[in-house]
Amino acid sequence: MTDAPRFLVLAEGSFNPLRSKTANACIRYSPARVAAVLDSTQRGKTAQQILGLGGAIPVVGSVDEGLAHRPNALLIGIAPQGGQLPPEWRAIILRVLDDGLDVWSGLHTLLGDDPEFAAHAAASGARMHDLRRPPRDLDVARGRVRDVAATVVLTVGTDCNIGKMTAALQLLDGLRAKGHRVAFAGTGQTGILIDGKGIAVDAVVADFIAGAAERLVLDAARDADIVLVEGQGSIIHPSYSGVTYGLLHGSLPHAQVMCTQPSRTAIRNNEWMPIPPLREFIALHERVPLRPAPVIAVALNTYDLDDAAAAAAVRATQQDTGLPATDPVRFDPAPVVDAIDAFHRARSR
Amino acid sequence: MTDAPRFLVLAEGSFNPLRSKTANACIRYSPARVAAVLDSTQRGKTAQQILGLGGAIPVVGSVDEGLAHRPNALLIGIAPQGGQLPPEWRAIILRVLDDGLDVWSGLHTLLGDDPEFAAHAAASGARMHDLRRPPRDLDVARGRVRDVAATVVLTVGTDCNIGKMTAALQLLDGLRAKGHRVAFAGTGQTGILIDGKGIAVDAVVADFIAGAAERLVLDAARDADIVLVEGQGSIIHPSYSGVTYGLLHGSLPHAQVMCTQPSRTAIRNNEWMPIPPLREFIALHERVPLRPAPVIAVALNTYDLDDAAAAAAVRATQQDTGLPATDPVRFDPAPVVDAIDAFHRARSR
Repeated sequence: MTDAPRFLVLAEGSFNPLRSKTANACIRYSPARVAAVLDSTQRGKTAQQILGLGGAIPVVGSVDEGLAHRPNALLIGIAPQGGQLPPEWRAIILRVLDDGLDVWSGLHTLLGDDPEFAAHAAASGARMHDLRRPPRDLDVARGRVRDVAATVVLTVGTDCNIGKMTAALQLLDGLRAKGHRVAFAGTGQTGILIDGKGIAVDAVVADFIAGAAERLVLDAARDADIVLVEGQGSIIHPSYSGVTYGLLHGSLPHAQVMCTQPSRTAIRNNEWMPIPPLREFIALHERVPLRPAPVIAVALNTYDLDDAAAAAAVRATQQDTGLPATDPVRFDPAPVVDAIDAFHRARSR
Repeated sequence: MTDAPRFLVLAEGSFNPLRSKTANACIRYSPARVAAVLDSTQRGKTAQQILGLGGAIPVVGSVDEGLAHRPNALLIGIAPQGGQLPPEWRAIILRVLDDGLDVWSGLHTLLGDDPEFAAHAAASGARMHDLRRPPRDLDVARGRVRDVAATVVLTVGTDCNIGKMTAALQLLDGLRAKGHRVAFAGTGQTGILIDGKGIAVDAVVADFIAGAAERLVLDAARDADIVLVEGQGSIIHPSYSGVTYGLLHGSLPHAQVMCTQPSRTAIRNNEWMPIPPLREFIALHERVPLRPAPVIAVALNTYDLDDAAAAAAVRATQQDTGLPATDPVRFDPAPVVDAIDAFHRARSR
């Protein structure tokens, strides 16, 4: 990359705390890279007003309006279920490519392989970055993580889009402050965007899910004492559990951090599947065979609760599970950081 | 297809009961489609001598020798771990394409997408059939199988290549003889070859494993009272468990048939992973969350035991698990057929 990207973030019709995961994470972890957010239904507001973060980043109502904020790239900031390109985005993408803006996408549809997009990009000199493009030379997993000296910690969760990536990212500073060499292993398009590397394990050919996870951990462990692996999906998710188990069995974590949202009682988009009580779900996770690993802390996502209810949820979770718990975004991540630190020290003794 | 295929089956260096799964299944279920098997290390033998089935089908030592048996297609009969094309096969494939033979492949490497193969095929009029090519329009799973009236039975197993496809195929006749409309849902390259349709769930983009399984069951259930779904991998397989869980959660079986090989004590190619005692493994399987389903019978693979030891293994399994058991290839499949029949009748009452 020659220039750091400065994004116009496409979040049309969906810019809110729950739906626009990629947009929100980019605003949280790299606000300087966001020029404007495109969502015509919320034109004129700021990111701060909608997300409670991102300050004065403006929400614009059209590509033209967005271009006035001088972005050099378009970021697809929302992930439609199934990850296909909604037809109405085609015109937007062609428009910005013609203007010479790069396009960054985490869709399953690999935009760089689209002949029309490729032709327009070639004509203007724009580049296409597909965050979900799998490496060409993946191998199957063979349990090679068993030979790694580093402590491998996987963030797991009761559902998709519940805080597994965010929890991992929020722990990095605290663990580094304790003197650990820590690596983040990004496994989804948003984690890869923020960390600048990784493999979207949900986009590889199914036989290679665990192999991709194994490679990520082996690579990350080279320069780290602790590897924080970004979890995906849920072991009870009707659509995506295969990715979750493959990631679990390829990364073979020593310990797990459980991520959950107290207000969510069923799998989103699959309301027929209830989320079991947390203590029961943790026990279930600790029994998943191959190399069973303890859940050593809980990271709560309380964005939809007021301060008092959030604090009460943290206390109730600590009491119910007997585990350290916090909302690592809203409150101090220290309880989870301390749990990983203690686990790592005990392992290394 | 204009002509029924008559295969030269490529099994170079690996034609034996354990390794050449696709070749063996084709010989078992469609012997008339096999002109010859290519394995220069066993030139001059017959399929019967090597597999105990297939009669006089000859093993040849070269492509030239194979062509003398007048095949009209080459079938890749072995599956290298990882499913990539071994470089030494390229010359063989080019040779037969130039001779006008079609090529049928179950490799992950999609041969039809190889520009050199495509050019040679176009020149001679040969066609490329990639059994693992995923459909273009897959969707994510949403638990739609819950609305299906048919009884869905999934064959599951302790390891890969242990008899899950064969068990399902061996049950079809017996269930039909009892008057049931039965559909086989092929999920791997060999099952698809034999049944003429299906989706290789290990070759789809990871997010769509369960979606592919869901579609297979919905399609099969349209004209069937009982759907037998071909299982894949194992819930404890370090390389492929993601496929196994995705298939389980997409197909949402009402009942499971457990397939195992009494002599196998660890996962093949991952000897560090022991296979738990069968009763324990069955209990584990019945606890996999989402829509837990009972294991109602056991299908043993006793090909490496003598008759007395095989019969003893069946008896021991019945006693140990309390379930009907048989080797559905070596002995009468009736105990498993009867178990499915009884389960289906009880469900339909």
